Amino acid sequence: MFEEIFENVRKSVPLIHSITNYVAVNDCANMLLACGASPIMADELEDALEITAICGGLNLNLGTLNRRTIPAMFAAGKRAGELGHPVILDPVGAGASALRTDTALRLLQEVKCTVIRGNISEIKTLALGSGTTRGVDADTADRVTGEVPAFVRDLARRTGAIIAVTGAVDLVTDGERAFYIYNGSPMMSTVTGTGCQLSALTAAFVAANPQQPLEASAAAVCAMGLCGEIAHSRLTAQDGNASYCRYIIDAMYRLTPAALEKGARYEVR
Amino acid sequence: MFEEIFENVRKSVPLIHSITNYVAVNDCANMLLACGASPIMADELEDALEITAICGGLNLNLGTLNRRTIPAMFAAGKRAGELGHPVILDPVGAGASALRTDTALRLLQEVKCTVIRGNISEIKTLALGSGTTRGVDADTADRVTGEVPAFVRDLARRTGAIIAVTGAVDLVTDGERAFYIYNGSPMMSTVTGTGCQLSALTAAFVAANPQQPLEASAAAVCAMGLCGEIAHSRLTAQDGNASYCRYIIDAMYRLTPAALEKGARYEVR
Amino acid sequence: MFEEIFENVRKSVPLIHSITNYVAVNDCANMLLACGASPIMADELEDALEITAICGGLNLNLGTLNRRTIPAMFAAGKRAGELGHPVILDPVGAGASALRTDTALRLLQEVKCTVIRGNISEIKTLALGSGTTRGVDADTADRVTGEVPAFVRDLARRTGAIIAVTGAVDLVTDGERAFYIYNGSPMMSTVTGTGCQLSALTAAFVAANPQQPLEASAAAVCAMGLCGEIAHSRLTAQDGNASYCRYIIDAMYRLTPAALEKGARYEVR
Repeated sequence: MFEEIFENVRKSVPLIHSITNYVAVNDCANMLLACGASPIMADELEDALEITAICGGLNLNLGTLNRRTIPAMFAAGKRAGELGHPVILDPVGAGASALRTDTALRLLQEVKCTVIRGNISEIKTLALGSGTTRGVDADTADRVTGEVPAFVRDLARRTGAIIAVTGAVDLVTDGERAFYIYNGSPMMSTVTGTGCQLSALTAAFVAANPQQPLEASAAAVCAMGLCGEIAHSRLTAQDGNASYCRYIIDAMYRLTPAALEKGARYEVR
Repeated sequence: MFEEIFENVRKSVPLIHSITNYVAVNDCANMLLACGASPIMADELEDALEITAICGGLNLNLGTLNRRTIPAMFAAGKRAGELGHPVILDPVGAGASALRTDTALRLLQEVKCTVIRGNISEIKTLALGSGTTRGVDADTADRVTGEVPAFVRDLARRTGAIIAVTGAVDLVTDGERAFYIYNGSPMMSTVTGTGCQLSALTAAFVAANPQQPLEASAAAVCAMGLCGEIAHSRLTAQDGNASYCRYIIDAMYRLTPAALEKGARYEVR
Repeated sequence: MFEEIFENVRKSVPLIHSITNYVAVNDCANMLLACGASPIMADELEDALEITAICGGLNLNLGTLNRRTIPAMFAAGKRAGELGHPVILDPVGAGASALRTDTALRLLQEVKCTVIRGNISEIKTLALGSGTTRGVDADTADRVTGEVPAFVRDLARRTGAIIAVTGAVDLVTDGERAFYIYNGSPMMSTVTGTGCQLSALTAAFVAANPQQPLEASAAAVCAMGLCGEIAHSRLTAQDGNASYCRYIIDAMYRLTPAALEKGARYEVR
C-alpha cells in the first residue's frame, strides 16, 4: 500500500506551498524535492493567496510565528480549503506561548485541516486548550503508550483531521483507525526541524493521494522514520547531527517506493 | 577569458549585498564565500541603503517577497545605480503571482538592472508582462532552442540589461551577442535555490569585472554549471540532493580560474 | 575546568532563545543541539517575551536586523535580565550602518548583557561609538595584539559584560582577567555565520554555568575553535567551505568534555 502511495508522489510531483519557520525552511524545501514534490514558499498575504491556488497542498507551520504572516496563514488556509487542497498544520511550540497556542486554536476553528502533526505536548495543547510544552520539544511526561489517548481521538473526531503524534513511537489516527509506527531513530531529535520536514513531507504525500489521507500520512511518517534509520546506518565516527541532517534528506532522495513498503514498520489497530 | 574574470573575483573580494529569500539565503552566502566574494544581507529600508553603499554589487531576489522588504529593494536598487554598482535581478516566481510579477516589472522601470537572471518562464513574464510560470519552476513548454527568442533579445535591448536564461541550455545575451552554455547537470534542479545561488554568484562576477558584464555573467553561469558537474561526479550511491547541494558549493570553493577556463563549455553566436 | 563547564551544558540541556538573523539561524540551532543545548527561536514581541521566560539564556544577534524584531530584542532582553538569565549580544555589522550601531548601543544602555561577542571592529564600534567595520567582517587594520586594548577593557568595565573579541587570536575578558585563545582555523572565516554559531554556543555555556560566566565564555570560544581544527583535519581534497560548515557542527556533536579540556589552547593574563 505504501509503495503505491509513494509512487503517486513521484509521479504527480505535487507542488506544495509552505508557510513555515525560517529555521527549517531550507531543509523543508530540499526534503520536498527529495521525495519527488516541488516546494514553494510565499508568506505575504496576497502572494500566499495566489500561490496556494496554483499548488496541490498547503503546509502551515507555527515556528517563528509572527504578526505579518499569521493573516497569510488564515487566508491561504481558507483558500486551500475552498479548493479542496489538503492543509497540514504543524503547531510548533503550541503550549509554550499564548501567541502560538491561540493561533493554532483559531486556525483549527477557521481552517479545515486535513492533518495535524506535532509532538504529544503540542497535540495535547490543541486538544485540551493548554499544555506543558517545553519550548519546541515534547514534555518527557507525555508519551504515547498502548492505547490511543482519549484526547487524541477526541481531537481527531472534533476537527475531522488526521492526528499525527510523533515521538519514540508515532501514532497516526483519524479517530477510528490508528497506525502505530516504529520507524525512526532517537538521533533525529538532535537535528533541528525534522518535525517540520515531516510536516512538509506529509503535505506532499496527502496531496498526491487525496483519496486516502490517513494511509498517506502514515506512509509519510514511516518514510521519514525509515530515512532516519538509513541515515543513521551511514554515520561514520566523525559524523554528527549536521551530517545526519544531510543524510536523512539524501536517504529520501534515494528511497524507492518498494524500499518504503519493505522497510515500513507499523501496526494498525 | 573566463580565467582572468574569475581571478578578478578572487583578487578583489567583492562585497555583495543580497536582499534575497529566506529559503536559499544561507547557501547564497556560502556560495559567495566559496567563489571568493564576501556576503552581507540587509533588508530593512534604512539598513539596506547604507549597506549597499559600502558594497560592490547588489543582488535582488524576489523569492519570499514581502511588503516590508520591497521598499528596501527599490531604495537599494536606486542607490546602487547611482553609485554605479551592478544590480542583479532574480525574478523568482514572476508569472506565478501578481505581487511577484508586478514587483519585478516595477523594478525594471525604476532600477537600472545590469543582469536579469531567471528561468525562461520568468524571463518571458518580464518580457511579455504575463507568463505561465509553474510556481518557481519553468513551464516545460518553455525551452531555449536554436535562436535567441525574440522576447529575450527585446527585453535585453529595452532594459539595457544582460539576460541570463538558465535551463537545460543556458543563454546569456545582451541582445547583440549571445553565449550558449552547456555546462550543468539535470540534478541541479533537485536542490532548492541553485538559481538563487547563481544570481548571487553573478553579482560577484560582474562586480569584479565592471568592464565586461556580459562575459562575467557568462563566466558565472559556466562556473555554476561546471561545479554542478564536478559535484555530480563526486556523488556516492548513498548521496542525494542534500549532499549534492554541499558538493556544488565545495566545488566552487576548490575551483581554480584555470579549471574554469578549461571546463567551460559554450558557444558565442 | 573547561571539562566541568562543558559537562554542565550536556547535563543541564539549557534551553536557549535566539533572536538571530535568517542567514545563520539553521546552523545556530544545530550547533546548540550539537553542544547538548536545546534551541528555540521566537522574534515576535509577545511571543519572544513568553518564550524567553521558559528559557535559560538569550542570544541577541543583529544580523538582518529589522524594525519588526528590534522591539522583541529589547523586551526579551529586559525580561531575561529580570529573570537573571544570561544575555549574549552579537552586534553583527555594528559600525557598518547606523541602524546596527544605534541598536547595539541602545541595547547596551537598556539591557544587561552578560557577554558581548564580536570581531574587533564591531567591539571597537560599541566601545567608541563609531568604527570602520567592512560589512560584517573585521577591518584588517584591527587586530588583537599583546595587550588587552584599552577600549575593550573599558567596555567591559563600563557595561559589566564579558567581552569576547574573536579573530586570529581570540580575547575573552571581564576587564580584569583575560583569556587569550589560540584555537581555531583561518578557514572558519570562509563559512557564513561561524561567529553567530559561537554566540549561540556561548549562551548555552554561560546559561549552564551561571557562577562562572568568564570561564564559560572562554570555554565556548575554545570549543568552537577546537571544532574548527578537528573539522579542518577531516577535509578531503574535494571538500570546501560547505562541507567544512557541516564538519564543525559534527565535531561539536562528537566533542567530549575531556577532549575540550585537552584540546583547549589558551593563556590567562
